Amino acid sequence: MNDDALRNLIRTIPDYPKPGILFRDITTLLKDGDGWGEVVDRLVTRYGRSGITAVAGIEARGFILGGAVAAGLGAGFIPIRKRGKLPAAVESLDYQLEYGSDRVEVHRDAVDAGQRVLLVDDLIATGGTAVAARDLLRGLGAVVVEAAFVIELPALSGRVRLEATGTPVHSLLAFDGH
Amino acid sequence: MNDDALRNLIRTIPDYPKPGILFRDITTLLKDGDGWGEVVDRLVTRYGRSGITAVAGIEARGFILGGAVAAGLGAGFIPIRKRGKLPAAVESLDYQLEYGSDRVEVHRDAVDAGQRVLLVDDLIATGGTAVAARDLLRGLGAVVVEAAFVIELPALSGRVRLEATGTPVHSLLAFDGH
Repeated sequence: MNDDALRNLIRTIPDYPKPGILFRDITTLLKDGDGWGEVVDRLVTRYGRSGITAVAGIEARGFILGGAVAAGLGAGFIPIRKRGKLPAAVESLDYQLEYGSDRVEVHRDAVDAGQRVLLVDDLIATGGTAVAARDLLRGLGAVVVEAAFVIELPALSGRVRLEATGTPVHSLLAFDGH
Repeated sequence: MNDDALRNLIRTIPDYPKPGILFRDITTLLKDGDGWGEVVDRLVTRYGRSGITAVAGIEARGFILGGAVAAGLGAGFIPIRKRGKLPAAVESLDYQLEYGSDRVEVHRDAVDAGQRVLLVDDLIATGGTAVAARDLLRGLGAVVVEAAFVIELPALSGRVRLEATGTPVHSLLAFDGH
């Protein structure tokens, strides 16, 4: 399946969640067995020889991709969750949103020092959540080898922010707008 | 990997989220590459010849398992989400909790009539959420071939409730208590 076929499986919903936003809806790609297989295969192929032993996925859509890529690599999966969702001792990080702030958490025993981890999510926009997730993993001693996304919105500069931390970014599809 | 080895990867956290509850924490299994691979392999093997073309996973931990099993089967993935999280037109179903109620939602165009779907989540307790998810999928015309869970708590009778709807239940590990 080529890039155009994959791109055509993404649905665009205008004015969601608020007026002026073009929401890129990945559910129409997920429900297509060939499209979903292509996404997972591309990432498993890319990281198959990279020594990655864990894939960290950001709640909630990053769980869908992260669990699948981890299984394909023979790696473990690490959930990065919103506030108060993890049952054991966590490290937390607050980060700024356009209005207010949000928090991501990870179990303190989620990774070993020096462990090579891939960070994934469905989409990178401003990169705020991804940078916070990367910082949490790094704080536990992980080596965040790369951050991978199905969709990138280059206009919002998430790649620039994340790569400034030293973590390279890979995305399968770039979309205009925000 | 045998059942005992898999079972030993589950962490039990006493008095979480409230006193008297033994919380079965799957994150210690997820982060183990061999254990996580075993879980996904077992389900992919079980359903490999069942004609399943979509796997529905319940937010949020069911996304981890569902995305991986879908990819392994060459099937699509359908997210079943909490209230207000899906961007297009949804069907909703409210269901009773011990105190109050909760809601699950699915996109109206998530499945085709007659499509053979596997429902998955990490754990079945009372089965309330799973029955609601099954009813949503059935309401869209899907055939819910089976519902599969990593962990079952037989004392809470979720299997009995779900099988009374006509959907068989499969779990990898059963734990005492609730």
